[in-house]
Amino acid sequence: MTEPTRAQLAARDAEDALSRFRERFALPASVIYLDGNSLGALPRATLGRLARVAGREWGEDLIAGWTTHDWMAMPLRLGDKIARLVGAGAGEVAVCDSTSVNLFKLLSAALSLRPERRVILSQDDNFPTDMYVAQRLVESLGGDHTLRLVPAAEVAGAIDDEVAVAMLSHVDYRSGRLHPMDRITAAAHARGALMLWDLSHSVGAMPIELAGCAADLAVGCGYKYLNGGPGAPAFAYVARPLQDEIRPALAGWMGHRAPFDFDGRYRPAAGIARLLVGTPPVLALAALEVGVDLLLEADLAELRRKSVALTELFIALADARLARYGFELASPRAPGERGSQVCLRHREGYPIVRALAARGVIGDFRPPDILRFGFAPLYIRYVDVWDAVAALAEVMETGAWREPEFRHRAAVT
Amino acid sequence: MTEPTRAQLAARDAEDALSRFRERFALPASVIYLDGNSLGALPRATLGRLARVAGREWGEDLIAGWTTHDWMAMPLRLGDKIARLVGAGAGEVAVCDSTSVNLFKLLSAALSLRPERRVILSQDDNFPTDMYVAQRLVESLGGDHTLRLVPAAEVAGAIDDEVAVAMLSHVDYRSGRLHPMDRITAAAHARGALMLWDLSHSVGAMPIELAGCAADLAVGCGYKYLNGGPGAPAFAYVARPLQDEIRPALAGWMGHRAPFDFDGRYRPAAGIARLLVGTPPVLALAALEVGVDLLLEADLAELRRKSVALTELFIALADARLARYGFELASPRAPGERGSQVCLRHREGYPIVRALAARGVIGDFRPPDILRFGFAPLYIRYVDVWDAVAALAEVMETGAWREPEFRHRAAVT
Repeated sequence: MTEPTRAQLAARDAEDALSRFRERFALPASVIYLDGNSLGALPRATLGRLARVAGREWGEDLIAGWTTHDWMAMPLRLGDKIARLVGAGAGEVAVCDSTSVNLFKLLSAALSLRPERRVILSQDDNFPTDMYVAQRLVESLGGDHTLRLVPAAEVAGAIDDEVAVAMLSHVDYRSGRLHPMDRITAAAHARGALMLWDLSHSVGAMPIELAGCAADLAVGCGYKYLNGGPGAPAFAYVARPLQDEIRPALAGWMGHRAPFDFDGRYRPAAGIARLLVGTPPVLALAALEVGVDLLLEADLAELRRKSVALTELFIALADARLARYGFELASPRAPGERGSQVCLRHREGYPIVRALAARGVIGDFRPPDILRFGFAPLYIRYVDVWDAVAALAEVMETGAWREPEFRHRAAVT
Repeated sequence: MTEPTRAQLAARDAEDALSRFRERFALPASVIYLDGNSLGALPRATLGRLARVAGREWGEDLIAGWTTHDWMAMPLRLGDKIARLVGAGAGEVAVCDSTSVNLFKLLSAALSLRPERRVILSQDDNFPTDMYVAQRLVESLGGDHTLRLVPAAEVAGAIDDEVAVAMLSHVDYRSGRLHPMDRITAAAHARGALMLWDLSHSVGAMPIELAGCAADLAVGCGYKYLNGGPGAPAFAYVARPLQDEIRPALAGWMGHRAPFDFDGRYRPAAGIARLLVGTPPVLALAALEVGVDLLLEADLAELRRKSVALTELFIALADARLARYGFELASPRAPGERGSQVCLRHREGYPIVRALAARGVIGDFRPPDILRFGFAPLYIRYVDVWDAVAALAEVMETGAWREPEFRHRAAVT
């Protein structure tokens, strides 16, 4: 690819069918935000929605809000919306708890669906919380079960008849690698195992076809490309044929068949509702709904086309302008194998990311040497990609990253 | 007690040391809100706090909010504040997840602390979600464990050397009965069992002495007397000597010793932090913090004195003016045995509660025949009690509750 000029990219932005979404977000003018894969940006409508839900619905209607404003229905109403983003049907997604807690529910349910099998299989570099959840679940069951970890590329081949459930991140948080959902799900089913996908790093950045792949179980995050706010509620998907069979180890009153009968004995609700546990977090759900509604206005195929174009552009510019400074591409080069992020590898990744942030270009660093850049296609422009690479080249050219202030290590998510 | 006049009660409100708190809440003028034990009222400061956290912290600082605004510290910072409300020390409370999810973590941890014991003991009329959590936990462990339920009054006597953990609501959600924390905790310890308290219906309405009673474990709700908003995050307490021994079955990256090392193996954090699982729900925590901060301004002994005075007044007025209509007191008459709520029993409880709500007096109904009135001492006035009883007498006197519109049953929490 010939290196485009910034003016050419500005023209491309002007023609972009998704460009109208950018103004729907409250992005600071001085920032190029390439970390929407970690924490999505604030939709402008969120502030008004929060003020209404807190001020009017809670403040004025108090306890009656549960019925007047149908707060009780929010987890499944919002689930039906997210279902449209992940290729699921109405009644197949619930919004509740955190990704980790939902993963626990689904993994425990999966083990009880395959009682003769004792293995949870996953990738050895899965997102840490996924591994921790599985590890503690397995340990708590007393020693008969195992968490088996293999490199991501070997997961499909490692599914055997001991595996109850295979769990994989659809897009790898570190490399940005996009795993083939259809092929791996089919491999799991061919060996009688259940397949669980973590969609945290793909939902909201591309079309997903859970039903099309006959995926059994999935979880996903509300605060990345769904723009639900820091620590937003997460979601869980269970394919309809499994819904009335699953019995998560963790259950509570919102998953009861009739929560307000105050029945002494747990009787699970029909369908996806049995995944609900505690009282719905209304303020947080309201904020998340704004983000999800925005995505539902966009064409998901268009979103993916733009996402691919943004990452292709970044890679081309990085090849042309950054390779000389020792950067290597740490994401797949084939766009079909890549999510909406690009990772570079550099020995001095940490101070470089910090020096870049000081210039208003926000990416993030993942140990030991990964610079991670996410391109949320709803609000990132082609010129942002150009400017980000230019800033990175400048940080290297001037040696700005060598400043002592950028070396101090602080926690970032 | 001689029945006071409304004017006398207005004078009492004027002298009340806590009366200044009422204006800190956005209570609708037309409502007498006696359901703060189900969903607390909106503190006026919450709207501004939400706008700041969403608009400025998230909107402007984006991912940097985690460090710049120390979002990551919120669960334990807020935990330390709640610790002061429950007689715990700094570092003994974490704010996270829902009450149900926290209960699951603590019960699973308790079972692993007493591996030779196989029984969870609780009251047979505990709040339903507590029973469901325990029931599913026990079932998921494969059949060796049991949930044993006895009447609340018999819990202390039923603790034997098979009981790993006894779990009781400090204040019963239905009757308002306040259980003697010191005596029952001592009974559990005398038999080698752990004691877990559910503080959902007491925290924020009275002083609680977890450490003073040497309680082992506790959970509590953020959206009742803590005024954190519908579905607010909950909290969990673990006595310090147990903290480094507990291994909840449910664990995630926020409870890891070094979450941002992205370690492949779960190593629990030291202290209470190991109870954290997923990413902190920042917006919801911010709203809850406003409610907790308000309570910390109040003297808890004064709060309890007023709470007792309000419920004593309600009972006296109900005796004088409502007994003739067939109401019976369903809460303990001795104030020392009662939380901050009073329940009446009436065969026609449901339409009566609805007819009362139509007059702006909000209580709630619990099947089969309980009318439940909560008196949040931060914002309920003595005249409110007088007006509520007057409205109830009028509903009965006029037969307003017989209107067909009040008979239709809708879910209320």
